[in-house]
Amino acid sequence: MIKDVQNQKDLRNIPIQKVGVKDVEIPLRIERKMPDNTSTLETVYAKAKMSVSLPCEYKGTHMSRFIEILNDYQKENLVSTDIEQILFDMKKKLDAKNAYLKFSFKYFLEKHAPVSNLKSLMCYDCAFEGEVDENDEYKFYLITKVPITTLCPCSKEISKYGAHNQRAMLKIKVSYDNDKHIWLEDLIQMAQNCASCEIYPLLKREDEKFVTETAYENPKFVEDVIRDIVTKLNENEIINFYEVEMEAFESIHSHNAWAYQKFQK
Amino acid sequence: MIKDVQNQKDLRNIPIQKVGVKDVEIPLRIERKMPDNTSTLETVYAKAKMSVSLPCEYKGTHMSRFIEILNDYQKENLVSTDIEQILFDMKKKLDAKNAYLKFSFKYFLEKHAPVSNLKSLMCYDCAFEGEVDENDEYKFYLITKVPITTLCPCSKEISKYGAHNQRAMLKIKVSYDNDKHIWLEDLIQMAQNCASCEIYPLLKREDEKFVTETAYENPKFVEDVIRDIVTKLNENEIINFYEVEMEAFESIHSHNAWAYQKFQK
Amino acid sequence: MIKDVQNQKDLRNIPIQKVGVKDVEIPLRIERKMPDNTSTLETVYAKAKMSVSLPCEYKGTHMSRFIEILNDYQKENLVSTDIEQILFDMKKKLDAKNAYLKFSFKYFLEKHAPVSNLKSLMCYDCAFEGEVDENDEYKFYLITKVPITTLCPCSKEISKYGAHNQRAMLKIKVSYDNDKHIWLEDLIQMAQNCASCEIYPLLKREDEKFVTETAYENPKFVEDVIRDIVTKLNENEIINFYEVEMEAFESIHSHNAWAYQKFQK
Amino acid sequence: MIKDVQNQKDLRNIPIQKVGVKDVEIPLRIERKMPDNTSTLETVYAKAKMSVSLPCEYKGTHMSRFIEILNDYQKENLVSTDIEQILFDMKKKLDAKNAYLKFSFKYFLEKHAPVSNLKSLMCYDCAFEGEVDENDEYKFYLITKVPITTLCPCSKEISKYGAHNQRAMLKIKVSYDNDKHIWLEDLIQMAQNCASCEIYPLLKREDEKFVTETAYENPKFVEDVIRDIVTKLNENEIINFYEVEMEAFESIHSHNAWAYQKFQK
Repeated sequence: MIKDVQNQKDLRNIPIQKVGVKDVEIPLRIERKMPDNTSTLETVYAKAKMSVSLPCEYKGTHMSRFIEILNDYQKENLVSTDIEQILFDMKKKLDAKNAYLKFSFKYFLEKHAPVSNLKSLMCYDCAFEGEVDENDEYKFYLITKVPITTLCPCSKEISKYGAHNQRAMLKIKVSYDNDKHIWLEDLIQMAQNCASCEIYPLLKREDEKFVTETAYENPKFVEDVIRDIVTKLNENEIINFYEVEMEAFESIHSHNAWAYQKFQK
Repeated sequence: MIKDVQNQKDLRNIPIQKVGVKDVEIPLRIERKMPDNTSTLETVYAKAKMSVSLPCEYKGTHMSRFIEILNDYQKENLVSTDIEQILFDMKKKLDAKNAYLKFSFKYFLEKHAPVSNLKSLMCYDCAFEGEVDENDEYKFYLITKVPITTLCPCSKEISKYGAHNQRAMLKIKVSYDNDKHIWLEDLIQMAQNCASCEIYPLLKREDEKFVTETAYENPKFVEDVIRDIVTKLNENEIINFYEVEMEAFESIHSHNAWAYQKFQK
Repeated sequence: MIKDVQNQKDLRNIPIQKVGVKDVEIPLRIERKMPDNTSTLETVYAKAKMSVSLPCEYKGTHMSRFIEILNDYQKENLVSTDIEQILFDMKKKLDAKNAYLKFSFKYFLEKHAPVSNLKSLMCYDCAFEGEVDENDEYKFYLITKVPITTLCPCSKEISKYGAHNQRAMLKIKVSYDNDKHIWLEDLIQMAQNCASCEIYPLLKREDEKFVTETAYENPKFVEDVIRDIVTKLNENEIINFYEVEMEAFESIHSHNAWAYQKFQK
Repeated sequence: MIKDVQNQKDLRNIPIQKVGVKDVEIPLRIERKMPDNTSTLETVYAKAKMSVSLPCEYKGTHMSRFIEILNDYQKENLVSTDIEQILFDMKKKLDAKNAYLKFSFKYFLEKHAPVSNLKSLMCYDCAFEGEVDENDEYKFYLITKVPITTLCPCSKEISKYGAHNQRAMLKIKVSYDNDKHIWLEDLIQMAQNCASCEIYPLLKREDEKFVTETAYENPKFVEDVIRDIVTKLNENEIINFYEVEMEAFESIHSHNAWAYQKFQK
């Protein structure tokens, strides 16, 4: 029989908070919100980060079991709603008090150009994050990064014509009551509503005119975007935690403007 | 006179926790520890992240002042020991309650090959992080990422010969009593002492034999490295906070093994 | 009517070799090779780079048409075999002499652990690249990056026990006769056969013993891997171009060993 | 005596075009152009890529010698003008027919804000690349990536007010007669002169007004920037090779606009 080194006693008397695997590439099945509020399943490219706590008496955790758990769920079409169950499986199969996981993935949404109404697919970096603690309390986080346009209010105000504008990234992480649900689709739209103007993959000339003028009519500092998104998040009664981060890749500098807000009910 | 848009009143009644600049590239003057425990100044490549809090009544912060503050210190040879002073300047010049900054930089240390004793320069990603709160409390963090070799205890134990080993990265962040000092040089050496074997830029054949055999004689899981560094950090009486993260770029997988521990006295 | 600025005359008399779009994120339909040599279609995450030549008399190309062409193919389930047709569409719709495109994507293959035979999915960075010139000549390139293990022959030879080994990346780009076909699956397996040992997402203890011993029995410098893959590529009669690049993330250094070979029949 | 595995005979009869080291981090001494056209030496953060050709009869190259050569030059304050000499040393010490190297580094230049004239330091990614062939012919390349602002001519033309603009990157690689010299400072300024407006780290309100209006008055497609830089490079009589690449991080899309031109006299 092959010796189980991980199972050996450890004498340093140090429990470890998190030990596991990172950058595990997997296909992930995601529920997509349909126009009629039903959902459909779809496979996306994802990276998994998974860890458990390790009691002081064990030398190591059994890393291959994380991959086996993922594989078990792959067979059954791993879906995001399985996250709580996966975490409890991790606790059980790795004999651990705490379990943590994060699935980061690429998610496409159909966008309609604002005037021509032409469709195209836009990709968003999203993530599901979850943890279960020693009291079996489950906590879930929904994360998205939404590219938007910001146009500088100061530049507009002080210049004879024009105003500098740029691609910017609004990152939102939320947690909400476990018996409720927030769709990625809705969180992404909430972010886009805080922009000087939304971003689109496909824009014809009439659309380009529209986005240029819309951004000019809605100048926003990174501070404005943060305040607008915070206002919307505060109004949402099921959200009990949020962390928002706004970064604008300034067209007039090679550094970025940045703002950050965190809230825990 | 040009209008000051940032200074305008904001009516959303939302103070912002952090607003500022990110990825500002600067030359930074660092104190290097000399063999006789004196120090010398040296210029390194750095990126700055700086932010302040913004009261609810102002529309925006004055981003250019961050760059001006950096420039003022550049003229006087900006050094890391100025961090506390820079933070108080930020509070004052931006009329803010809280200030935060992080300088991330590339730092070279001379290494001696273990047998041939040949010298070469090895580069480490390091950072200084600091904040001052509304009560003028100053908190400083020292950060380093140290590349090391780890060799798998399980692989060694179960195989007839050989053992998989790999490049790994040990990241350490510490805070310590404000009236004490920890040199980057010493923190990096502490990290290297927890490896299966240190990493060197220049190794002749006799050195390669040494590092191969040393790693084989010191097998370590990511869990072992975390426990060893945690033991050393716990023994250090001036350290009141640490966060350590260990990531091994497994040679037998394309994902990484990972472990994490955080402590606040 | 909205003015067509791109269509205006340019007087600098400079034709441009390539102008287009980069980092367009799209879902791409790929043909997957099945065990019985048939194929099935599958959606993967991809990034597109597309360009055309621009004659000296036009001020600009019509960037939105690249996205429209992609969208047209999306509707019909864009597949890799459409590349030649897409290039000809690009020439026509953008009124250009030359067209170029590259689809870079994430591709999963099922791997079986060498002893336990347990299945898991491994991800490879792959790409299809194509161009059509002014004489309507079509050229296609197949690209893959395959993570493998290398074990150092020198370290093994000179050390009492052990040998340093590491994750490494073998990148292969090939072109072949237009009427023939090479499957990504086969090119990836060819790369893996040149390693000290293949890499797997899921390895149980009996598998870890196997990969450790296999790597130890097959020591390879980056030079060896290059010569082995070059030998295989030379033996393949339909390949008329290749470019191979080998990079080993040395476990004993923080820099990489690297080798490169290019061949055009 | 320790066996020299690299020196062993190889029987596959395959010479290798390039074999060496990559991502070697080093401090590099660079000649900086002074206002009076003299120069001063300055240390920058650099990454080295170095390779030689390997004849078919040898199993491997001696990787540690690349680091030793760098170290020898470090002692004497390695400067960029040593590149030709380093390449000949590589040929000699590694007994090779061809040698190649690239030093990629971070380079700061002082910029003056356009109206306030305030000084700040801006960082550019630059590189020196060189090779010596089997006939001892030396070829040198100077490379820089310059961040600039571009403002879209179409967006300006068709919109009632405003115009989308964005951060963009102009990459230039040139080679020129071996007995002549081009300063990085001058190549960077040439690039900036092709922008809708230059980028600056520090801008006060009067400067922000200036850059906003200047960009609006100088709309440029990526095609325009390429044609402008190509015109300047064509006019320079000592330049015998160039490769230019323009990428605009479109504020209205999440993909980039891109253009490319290569020329060999």
